Amino acid sequence: MAALTAPTTDVTASVESFLDEARALVAPALRDAVGELPEPERRIAGYHRGWHEADGSPLPSLACAQGGGKAVRPALVLLAARAVGGSAECAVPGAVAVELIHDFSLLHDDVIDGDPLRRHRPAAWTVYGTPAAVLAGDALLVGAMRTLAAVPAPSADAALQEVLAMLGRLMAGQSQDVAFERLGRVGVGEYLDMAEGKTGALMGCACALGGVLAGAGRERVAGLRDFGRCLGVAFQCVDDLLGIWGTSARSGKPVGSDLAARKKSLPVVAALADEGPAGRRLSALYERPEPLDEAGIALAAELVERAGGRERTEREVARQTTAAMRALSRAEPPADVYRQMQELAVLLTGRDR
Amino acid sequence: MAALTAPTTDVTASVESFLDEARALVAPALRDAVGELPEPERRIAGYHRGWHEADGSPLPSLACAQGGGKAVRPALVLLAARAVGGSAECAVPGAVAVELIHDFSLLHDDVIDGDPLRRHRPAAWTVYGTPAAVLAGDALLVGAMRTLAAVPAPSADAALQEVLAMLGRLMAGQSQDVAFERLGRVGVGEYLDMAEGKTGALMGCACALGGVLAGAGRERVAGLRDFGRCLGVAFQCVDDLLGIWGTSARSGKPVGSDLAARKKSLPVVAALADEGPAGRRLSALYERPEPLDEAGIALAAELVERAGGRERTEREVARQTTAAMRALSRAEPPADVYRQMQELAVLLTGRDR
Repeated sequence: MAALTAPTTDVTASVESFLDEARALVAPALRDAVGELPEPERRIAGYHRGWHEADGSPLPSLACAQGGGKAVRPALVLLAARAVGGSAECAVPGAVAVELIHDFSLLHDDVIDGDPLRRHRPAAWTVYGTPAAVLAGDALLVGAMRTLAAVPAPSADAALQEVLAMLGRLMAGQSQDVAFERLGRVGVGEYLDMAEGKTGALMGCACALGGVLAGAGRERVAGLRDFGRCLGVAFQCVDDLLGIWGTSARSGKPVGSDLAARKKSLPVVAALADEGPAGRRLSALYERPEPLDEAGIALAAELVERAGGRERTEREVARQTTAAMRALSRAEPPADVYRQMQELAVLLTGRDR
Repeated sequence: MAALTAPTTDVTASVESFLDEARALVAPALRDAVGELPEPERRIAGYHRGWHEADGSPLPSLACAQGGGKAVRPALVLLAARAVGGSAECAVPGAVAVELIHDFSLLHDDVIDGDPLRRHRPAAWTVYGTPAAVLAGDALLVGAMRTLAAVPAPSADAALQEVLAMLGRLMAGQSQDVAFERLGRVGVGEYLDMAEGKTGALMGCACALGGVLAGAGRERVAGLRDFGRCLGVAFQCVDDLLGIWGTSARSGKPVGSDLAARKKSLPVVAALADEGPAGRRLSALYERPEPLDEAGIALAAELVERAGGRERTEREVARQTTAAMRALSRAEPPADVYRQMQELAVLLTGRDR
């Protein structure tokens, strides 16, 4: 645990082992926070996080080890605190709050999108019903803010303000995302604005919270926030690439499911903007009312690629990652922490491609 | 407006005209707060409040005057500020936050209960769909907290803490309420605990917020909070009475709809606990799987009354109202404000019975 609490000059631990350590540090506080929820919200939150089966019984141990995913966001909160000279421990309430808000948004998102799967398992709303999933999401959001409100002043106030500003952006991004499905044409700029809200805001907030809880000044906090936000947009772009060309094992969803759902992800948005034959054929395919079969999905993927959608998205990943690292420098982190955050950025944006 | 901002010794204005004044004082800030929401949440919130039709077009002016109901909660916030020597104006952000949280909970409640009607109109989820109603509720909750976070420190922090503690109680009460529908038997004590969370917590918070924003000390704030909480429980009990013996014009729902839905409201809970013949016949009626027709509803209402459910509930209204007024004295309000709050309590608990 020493590597977490004090900067070391010898960066030997890989980012994977840092993620393990961060998870271990945050887990007890996270269990406490979820444990304070009333039933059935507590059980629903635990199921959603992969802590247990739908009826509360234990999972097979292999699945259990994966519970809650990689927990990248809490690791970002702890690293950000270390980046400005604080301890990882002081940032634990921020890490808990960010995880709870992430869970809140996933629970409600799955209801909103009607997504039947989450993390390779039936989504909570399919198991417990929509009403219970809505209420569980509400309880997690409130639990997140109560966690921050319990931090000693003045950090609590600054942390709450950070989270409230983020939530405004997050909800706007979710609304835009829903609206995109109804709109005929979405611009690349509009898409990036949506991604900044839907994915960038929470990662930016994660990093800013680490800084705030470690008592950093406004400028360094802003550098951390911008780092997380750009990283979040890059992460979303990679997710979009995986939604077309990724494997089912990673995403927990069928291959090409974004295309089957005619989702307006960045590769598609960029390809539809192409005036050449591939872009026009893709437009025609996306406008057809009938569902896409396997051959249709394969054709759509090919057209997106030929219309430059894949290349445009990969360029965006590179651009956002560069901007993220530049912003991180403004927070003036020690060299070893800078390198760990860089490794984390690579992990997030280079996922099995 | 003078009557709102400075205590007067001559209480001539009726409580109805005070409600009008409070609505006028809060309305612009409320419109601003809703106006800051992204679309379509802004439109959904406006429809839900009765500001406009589902498509955003204006309502007939008569309906418009009723938009948003009586706005009792914001009036309580302003009166509570005056009770501790503050101005009504300083409490406006609290009144806005309380209204937004009330709307959040109604929007999600209607989704959770599947209620098709709200304030005599189709509930938002039936008009815009469940996903949009969920997202609009989320946006209102976040908007409420952002409104409070924008208040000058240190009031903002105290106000946020007050709201977060309340939300924990509110969610627990909502969960209990949902659970009651599945439970075979609910005790009167359990019922009152649920009502304290579901209805008492928000009214208690409304009054506490007025005190907090006016800079009152802990003891006076606690007196205000207890006043609001007891008043809220009394209000819920009256609502339960009206759910059986009220008219459709008031509730916006068919007469006896609580019985048709076999809702475990206080009169029913108390009657089911009766060991005599009326209680036993009611139990048998409630356990039947088939829907209750008009004659069945009339019989159920008669059995509730004969088993003492109505009398027990009326006694609870009186008990909670007395406790409320006793708590209010601890806040040491000037005589004229005490009287206005008493009139408001009578209005809330004596509704067309």
